[in-house]
Amino acid sequence: MNPRATRFLQACRGEPVDRTPVWFMRQAGRYMAEYRAIRARHSILEICQRPDVAAEVTLQPVRRFEVDAAIIFADILLPLVPMGLDLEFATGEGPIFSNPIRSAADVKKLRPVNPQEDLGHILECMRIVRQELDGKVPVIGFAGAPFTLASYAIEGRSSRNFILTKQLMYTEPEVWHDLLGRLSRVVSDYLAAQVEAGAQAVQLFDSWVGALGPDDYRQYVLPHTQAIFKNLAGLDVPRIHFGTGTATLLELMKEAGGDVIGLDWRVPLREGRRRLGYDVAVQGNLEPMALLAPRDVLEQKVRRVLDEAEGRPGHVFNLGHGILPDTPVENVEAVVELVHSHENGLES
Amino acid sequence: MNPRATRFLQACRGEPVDRTPVWFMRQAGRYMAEYRAIRARHSILEICQRPDVAAEVTLQPVRRFEVDAAIIFADILLPLVPMGLDLEFATGEGPIFSNPIRSAADVKKLRPVNPQEDLGHILECMRIVRQELDGKVPVIGFAGAPFTLASYAIEGRSSRNFILTKQLMYTEPEVWHDLLGRLSRVVSDYLAAQVEAGAQAVQLFDSWVGALGPDDYRQYVLPHTQAIFKNLAGLDVPRIHFGTGTATLLELMKEAGGDVIGLDWRVPLREGRRRLGYDVAVQGNLEPMALLAPRDVLEQKVRRVLDEAEGRPGHVFNLGHGILPDTPVENVEAVVELVHSHENGLES
Repeated sequence: MNPRATRFLQACRGEPVDRTPVWFMRQAGRYMAEYRAIRARHSILEICQRPDVAAEVTLQPVRRFEVDAAIIFADILLPLVPMGLDLEFATGEGPIFSNPIRSAADVKKLRPVNPQEDLGHILECMRIVRQELDGKVPVIGFAGAPFTLASYAIEGRSSRNFILTKQLMYTEPEVWHDLLGRLSRVVSDYLAAQVEAGAQAVQLFDSWVGALGPDDYRQYVLPHTQAIFKNLAGLDVPRIHFGTGTATLLELMKEAGGDVIGLDWRVPLREGRRRLGYDVAVQGNLEPMALLAPRDVLEQKVRRVLDEAEGRPGHVFNLGHGILPDTPVENVEAVVELVHSHENGLES
Repeated sequence: MNPRATRFLQACRGEPVDRTPVWFMRQAGRYMAEYRAIRARHSILEICQRPDVAAEVTLQPVRRFEVDAAIIFADILLPLVPMGLDLEFATGEGPIFSNPIRSAADVKKLRPVNPQEDLGHILECMRIVRQELDGKVPVIGFAGAPFTLASYAIEGRSSRNFILTKQLMYTEPEVWHDLLGRLSRVVSDYLAAQVEAGAQAVQLFDSWVGALGPDDYRQYVLPHTQAIFKNLAGLDVPRIHFGTGTATLLELMKEAGGDVIGLDWRVPLREGRRRLGYDVAVQGNLEPMALLAPRDVLEQKVRRVLDEAEGRPGHVFNLGHGILPDTPVENVEAVVELVHSHENGLES
């Protein structure tokens, strides 16, 4: 039996594993020559829209490395497009929405989403990937969380201070809750459809929620994120809940839901687990920049994460955020080997 | 006796006060019409270089509001200029260095700084402000901390991921420590000179240090920040140590030094104090965006900060980061009044 087929899912469920499973957020991407070759011929949106191409990109890191999971290649902003937002990726600027949400009227105009019809290409990609993998490793589906999606939809682009986002939140709370409720519905249906199409785990990315303090998180975000996890509770797949800058939000993120909580690199893994309790698993949390460091620094940091996991069941090795574009491929390979060579015996 | 003359310094020292003192980071700035009128005639660098104009800008918020401290108008990047870096403020882009530090050779070329000669205009501004204030409120001097200054010097501009900064840190640690040691020396001398010129408290801004996890902070930053606080220990002024995104660094920031630790808005004040211990004071920590919220939301958030202070001595009210340019002046005024009207009795 191939241990890569099961190790990741076992760790997500808190079960003992032979080796710590490892995968990387943004493991399919620009740092790989195979990906750049495809990007030379297709835009990001084209890749996402063509199930065969997106499947190929998804499989590249699984072929290249001994990672323990695949994650479907897509962008968290895609579900906003059938809702009515015009998305483009401007060179050097990242995603841009030309018609951002600024008012109650803008929210009212948002359309409901039928994942089968509106995001069928991603579901088709999921089916191809699941078939191609043939049980070799599990495949993860994912979506953006309501706060993070709302921040892009409102700002119209990535943001540093989330001024317009928080202004809407504080000034028009009914409009805010209307928007996040709609996003929560769309994300729930989208993730459920991904599971139906073959996803064996799902990850909710609340990448920018660390802009909020705990009071605001509880009041403006938690109910909507919680609704998603409740909607998915009946599906028999592990649910991963990830964010960055979340050092003061961990307990509330657990309350919102998830079988696995993703930690960024600023929370020591041991401390994060102690605070979360051992009834959820954790994922993380190597500093992404460590992959651009000299090998000795990289290895020291990988070992530190593994040591902090203390050999307890319920740890999935990953970065604390996505792989950076300038990452050397051989360093990714070295991390996979190092994680897999680590002895997992529970320390006394 | 005017309580505004002493309240801030007493709170910094952990002594009981009649009312919680309040001032705002970036309290002199674009949100004030008086400031915009001056900016219409002078660039930011011109204001900083003209002691009379910088003094006028420094005094504007003290005249307009009942704040309990003035803070000298300057930019944290100014000491990098006599070190040899070419600074300009590009419209809409913030500070830009055309000759950023990228190598050991760049670090070796950096010049030592004599604050009296090289930053004399700021010291002269301090003298004018101190004289003009005539004891009405204390005046605070400040400087950027080594990590934050290094990040601008290396990236050449503000940054989201600090890729070049961390790359130098991990790849050439001797060059990194050489650079931070030089910055630590310059900052120590500069702050001491500000005290000599009249500053009654000093604040060290490590605004971006929250990009690091605790291990990296301890290894790459703490010794250099600690050196500054040790160098200033003989001066009889409170030393404030501020950063953002520091939820996992607070204990180490205390170890590095400071009589007052500045908290951002994501760390609940009560929890921050409990972790820091009650032998240091704290400053903070209203979400800056609360000043752009409707009055009821703003007041609720101000009261929450005051309630979390629990009436214990050793709290200076402030924001969790600087005032945003679109802040309505009347909201700043309302916060000052609300803080001053709050009863400070120690709760049982």
